[in-house]
Amino acid sequence: MTIITLTTDFGLSDGYVGAMKGVILSIAPAARLVDLSHEIAPQDVGQAAYVLASASPYFPAGAVHLAVVDPGVGALRRPLLVTTPQAAFVGPDNGLLTFALEAPGAQAWVLDRPSYWLAEISRTFHGRDIFAPVAAHLACGVPPEDLGSPITDPVSLAARRPPPAIEGGASGSGNNHIIGHVIHIDRFGNLISDVPAAWVATGNWACTIASQRIPRHACRGISDSYAAVAPGELVVLISSGGTVEVAVREGSAAQMLGISVGQPIELWKE
Amino acid sequence: MTIITLTTDFGLSDGYVGAMKGVILSIAPAARLVDLSHEIAPQDVGQAAYVLASASPYFPAGAVHLAVVDPGVGALRRPLLVTTPQAAFVGPDNGLLTFALEAPGAQAWVLDRPSYWLAEISRTFHGRDIFAPVAAHLACGVPPEDLGSPITDPVSLAARRPPPAIEGGASGSGNNHIIGHVIHIDRFGNLISDVPAAWVATGNWACTIASQRIPRHACRGISDSYAAVAPGELVVLISSGGTVEVAVREGSAAQMLGISVGQPIELWKE
Amino acid sequence: MTIITLTTDFGLSDGYVGAMKGVILSIAPAARLVDLSHEIAPQDVGQAAYVLASASPYFPAGAVHLAVVDPGVGALRRPLLVTTPQAAFVGPDNGLLTFALEAPGAQAWVLDRPSYWLAEISRTFHGRDIFAPVAAHLACGVPPEDLGSPITDPVSLAARRPPPAIEGGASGSGNNHIIGHVIHIDRFGNLISDVPAAWVATGNWACTIASQRIPRHACRGISDSYAAVAPGELVVLISSGGTVEVAVREGSAAQMLGISVGQPIELWKE
Repeated sequence: MTIITLTTDFGLSDGYVGAMKGVILSIAPAARLVDLSHEIAPQDVGQAAYVLASASPYFPAGAVHLAVVDPGVGALRRPLLVTTPQAAFVGPDNGLLTFALEAPGAQAWVLDRPSYWLAEISRTFHGRDIFAPVAAHLACGVPPEDLGSPITDPVSLAARRPPPAIEGGASGSGNNHIIGHVIHIDRFGNLISDVPAAWVATGNWACTIASQRIPRHACRGISDSYAAVAPGELVVLISSGGTVEVAVREGSAAQMLGISVGQPIELWKE
Repeated sequence: MTIITLTTDFGLSDGYVGAMKGVILSIAPAARLVDLSHEIAPQDVGQAAYVLASASPYFPAGAVHLAVVDPGVGALRRPLLVTTPQAAFVGPDNGLLTFALEAPGAQAWVLDRPSYWLAEISRTFHGRDIFAPVAAHLACGVPPEDLGSPITDPVSLAARRPPPAIEGGASGSGNNHIIGHVIHIDRFGNLISDVPAAWVATGNWACTIASQRIPRHACRGISDSYAAVAPGELVVLISSGGTVEVAVREGSAAQMLGISVGQPIELWKE
Repeated sequence: MTIITLTTDFGLSDGYVGAMKGVILSIAPAARLVDLSHEIAPQDVGQAAYVLASASPYFPAGAVHLAVVDPGVGALRRPLLVTTPQAAFVGPDNGLLTFALEAPGAQAWVLDRPSYWLAEISRTFHGRDIFAPVAAHLACGVPPEDLGSPITDPVSLAARRPPPAIEGGASGSGNNHIIGHVIHIDRFGNLISDVPAAWVATGNWACTIASQRIPRHACRGISDSYAAVAPGELVVLISSGGTVEVAVREGSAAQMLGISVGQPIELWKE
């Protein structure tokens, strides 16, 4: 009854996801398959890493998270397994598993035991030929040390993105100034930043994004819910992931502001 | 082995649906998750209500239907449970559960027992924090009276939409005239109306929509199947939900006629 | 615990797929539902047939594959069951099940026993009313001869498409020349042809598609992986299905070349 979640950029108009599921169920007939997303934008490793980070913590301990966004398939990137005290993550070593690598007690393994793969390995679809079988064997109880060898240098996206910064200190007084970045744009066009809610928990804050100052709708500048503003208006609030979010009530902030992932968001304590 | 179906406007490119599934399986490991739709148009409560109404009757008795299209999340709308002799429905009290409320023997409950929710409740994602845990507890056998308190004033969409009308009576003779409305447009661009099939079961009918008269292709004016006309032509027939439908064979009636949900459709007995 | 896979062009914004799943679980509560694709382009029987052909072979023996892309619903096309030594396939007799029909030991049956269907049969949704119940009864162990009658003339797409051709013979020497066709374009815009990998396994090959010669990046003309070229460049390689594929690294070959399914691809031995 082990849960295997799937996250890919394969979409659902081809047979790729189905082939992976068939491979898994052939090896681990009792595995429970749960789709996280197959609508990751093609080759968008960062988006998939964010989806894994937001959804995987809610699964029961022991789940196996299989993720395949793999522009380097067939070339030199390594196939990776990351184990944490809570879960196992399988996918290409291209930063996709950054979230898992940051967990306390995480261990990375390069998958180098072809006896646990399909007999024939294509050059373009390791999701089916390597990652799906390994996830299935994990679900059957095969230990990580049988599937791969420990490594200490897996690829992390964390090094590539600037962390959010606060002047004056998170608990300081005076002219605090925060610079963060948009790290995800969801289906509704909500702009999710990397600025922790705790940084804006006290004091009154003003927010600027894409050179536009968001009107303040709440005493602290951070609103309680989308309903704090009228439909069509911008609002700053705390996202379900616990960071600062800029949204338009019943509309798309991304479209209204012309924002894409990576753009800065600034907050000033007043 | 209780079935929990999921209907949301979350799409599948974010981690929202995955997080809900993780929460459910953490509380009810044996629950069977069945996706109805996550591609409801953002904030389109009416579309989701229609999908629930068309799919939920086909599930076995005892199923739990979890639906989250929730533009008022974090504001004053109540979290709702509706029980019927056949099933349970969980979601925001904004009309989404109208179908369930209309069932004989339906009982509405406001969800007011936080001990059955996640420990921490966000202001933007009650699907994960309130509705998913409640659905999971229902699947585990927790009775409704432990999860909420009975209410008698849940929100219904029925009051907002004009019902279809027939002049001359459904079984009358003479110049019968029906005015209905398009209540759903499906993926194929088929226009589903609220006019019951029984109203056009006898006699010869002519149909007008968007000031365009649909050519008659069958003796009654209502055709037996899409194949009654040539590819690309308009046809009037009975939808799989048992109401009058306007379609284009191997094409999109919505696109050809420029129709949106809510527009009138008229039928005359000749 | 029998697996039932689902492949349709119903999309996921209506209640159609959900209704089918409800019907199946009402008849076969223990069946395992696995979505292959619901994003087949509307009425694209060929695309669905390709998806079935690429994914179904990876499933364990005994799986039931339910496929509904059914422009002729309600008209004269027959409802079909195809059994092979490995699996069963259920769907309309319009070529959708071509892959199954080509398997050694395949047997076709027309579904003509309404006692195994829903009590009421709509004219527009045989997926819910005929095919889903039959798939569920198969999963419960009902034998094919109870569900239908053997036929010998099912519809095959194979007859309609020109097979790939090689001048000089597959193992010949000299001026070999291959003409094949694009049979599928995947989400990434990769062009999948029907030219078997074995035909280009030896010798040096040049490739032309849409009057454009693909630059050679490997000694054989066929590259090992997408990474053989720089991002944005065209590459010829072997697809995960074992045929010649034309791709653009981290881009869309379909968009760059303006190709659609059915266009020819040519290869010359040099």
